[in-house]
Amino acid sequence: MSIGVVGAGQLGRMLALAGYPLGLEFLFLDRSAETPAGQVAPILCGEFADRALLAELAARSQVLTFDWENVSVEALRALPRRTRIRPPIAALATAQDRMHEKRLFERLAIPTTRWRGVESRAELERALAAVGLPGVLKTRRLGYDGKGQALVRSRSEAERAFAELGAAPLIYEELVRFEREVSIIGARSTRGELAIYPLNDNLHARGILRLTRAPCAAPHLQRLAARYLKRVLTHFHYAGILSIEFFVRGGGLIANEMAPRVHNSGHWTIEGAATSQFENHLRAILGLPLGATRALGHCAMLNLIGRMPARARLLAHRELHLHDYGKQARPGRKLGHITLVERSARARDARARRLLTELAPGLSIP
Amino acid sequence: MSIGVVGAGQLGRMLALAGYPLGLEFLFLDRSAETPAGQVAPILCGEFADRALLAELAARSQVLTFDWENVSVEALRALPRRTRIRPPIAALATAQDRMHEKRLFERLAIPTTRWRGVESRAELERALAAVGLPGVLKTRRLGYDGKGQALVRSRSEAERAFAELGAAPLIYEELVRFEREVSIIGARSTRGELAIYPLNDNLHARGILRLTRAPCAAPHLQRLAARYLKRVLTHFHYAGILSIEFFVRGGGLIANEMAPRVHNSGHWTIEGAATSQFENHLRAILGLPLGATRALGHCAMLNLIGRMPARARLLAHRELHLHDYGKQARPGRKLGHITLVERSARARDARARRLLTELAPGLSIP
Repeated sequence: MSIGVVGAGQLGRMLALAGYPLGLEFLFLDRSAETPAGQVAPILCGEFADRALLAELAARSQVLTFDWENVSVEALRALPRRTRIRPPIAALATAQDRMHEKRLFERLAIPTTRWRGVESRAELERALAAVGLPGVLKTRRLGYDGKGQALVRSRSEAERAFAELGAAPLIYEELVRFEREVSIIGARSTRGELAIYPLNDNLHARGILRLTRAPCAAPHLQRLAARYLKRVLTHFHYAGILSIEFFVRGGGLIANEMAPRVHNSGHWTIEGAATSQFENHLRAILGLPLGATRALGHCAMLNLIGRMPARARLLAHRELHLHDYGKQARPGRKLGHITLVERSARARDARARRLLTELAPGLSIP
Repeated sequence: MSIGVVGAGQLGRMLALAGYPLGLEFLFLDRSAETPAGQVAPILCGEFADRALLAELAARSQVLTFDWENVSVEALRALPRRTRIRPPIAALATAQDRMHEKRLFERLAIPTTRWRGVESRAELERALAAVGLPGVLKTRRLGYDGKGQALVRSRSEAERAFAELGAAPLIYEELVRFEREVSIIGARSTRGELAIYPLNDNLHARGILRLTRAPCAAPHLQRLAARYLKRVLTHFHYAGILSIEFFVRGGGLIANEMAPRVHNSGHWTIEGAATSQFENHLRAILGLPLGATRALGHCAMLNLIGRMPARARLLAHRELHLHDYGKQARPGRKLGHITLVERSARARDARARRLLTELAPGLSIP
């Protein structure tokens, strides 16, 4: 039984490593075999939107899935009707466009930021008037890890941001003064079964996730986030893992964005949960029973960004789990992550603080 | 950094799956690419003793290791001197010959069964007189999973067993009336660091391991087994994982055999220990710091033998970890295993009992 995966990054790599013990086989599609997943599984090399290659991938796989959300929806829609694409293309299409995403949140009564679409200077004026300052101007499509967006604190910054980004359709949204950032991850299987993970507390810096701690001990937020996630899962008759990122403000949640795939803030589940998000994604898209999502301890996940510390130095830390994605180092690039599973939140936080100081000087846990 | 592995069975497969997160690469040597490890890593196809292939494997790898113990010692010895072979060839050579193994145990004051070498009918007579009845006649080499041995309860059975096996050098040893079977697994790194796992309680049927429970709550036996294991590790200036199987009789341990590799009775460490035996084998042969060996709960590992149950049926069990080796089904063949990690020994035993009844009717936990 083979799983076809569009995109062979670290998410695809961890998907394959979770699927091999289940007896699954994998075939990836990406631009190069030197990708993280291409090092651990066979790969078709070519463009993501290459219809002939996508058709070959589909023909050789029982189910088609993806490890990033910027797969061409048009190319997927052109595949033979019998192709099983999971998660559903509709969820992918929504997540690819910030405006569609905002509209979905509003339609499902999930609180989100105030926003306006911006395709011209006139619309920028109206958006500034309606949403106010400060705000963030973002491309509707192809943004990730803080790319394709600009902070706007003044009218002149708005002009400059529009000049820089305005070739593409944009949205302007309010800048949320949040207390913390959290994310929720859950699965829905083709049989309609649901499994929701404990809430993640996330720390970003320069637009990139640096640290996740889970479970996030906030029962009220957990319930709220799970309720919102279930609305989206049900709306799409979803199959697979879905995640939503939220800002926390005044005891409530404000949805920031969703991702129709396994998520960086869920990497702790590999060692820290009864079943990892990767295994549950596979179970969900194959219609297998979902695995338990309970946390096995108090977990922290730190991303290794830009430069890979020496393996021996990392492994000298007691009970640290290393995940090296096999990528070439490059500033700002996610090269790997490490996970801690501790017996108390206090022990977890103390270790995470020390590791953060060692790995990312200048960052600290609020 | 690439690890060369001679043998591409399930042990090699799990070695690769443990090594990929550390950023390691693998190259296997085996007779077919359709082997368990050949499905998840590149493979050189050919005979294990093919000197040209072994030399290619060595040249393309930083360290050479093996996933079974019947690798040709002569072929390994013929490799260039600079080849790093870990565990050491001397340990492999000893484990390949039951007589050398017995002599090692005796030399290191590790209690073992009474035995005699048998290469002729005259020696069989002397062995029967010295060791008595009942006993077991075994080939000195190439025995595993109960193959190459015969129970001897009478003089006529001894004659028959000798007629069947006597073309090869044999040993005759006493049949131990044991209370239980246990095994100990531990690592020594190239830097001399030691890490010993909790003791395993093993249940065999028809010569094949069916169930392991760990940790085995017997502090006296744990200390004793660890002491014996350390003697062997130190004796060989060992690098990698080593295991010894023991019979328990009258509160003492009687060494049965050793294996210079990761061991079936240690598969529970993948989910059930802070660091798996597979990861620690890799850390040990690469001179990296060893990982913690503590158990994360009360674990049971059941082998899936002969016939693979439906995936959906297995995964419907709460918090069950499946390992499917991707092998063709065949009577008596190890096709996979499942692991449980429970909060109490009682809960673990209750679940293991139910699963054993379901998977291997006729077997029960003593």
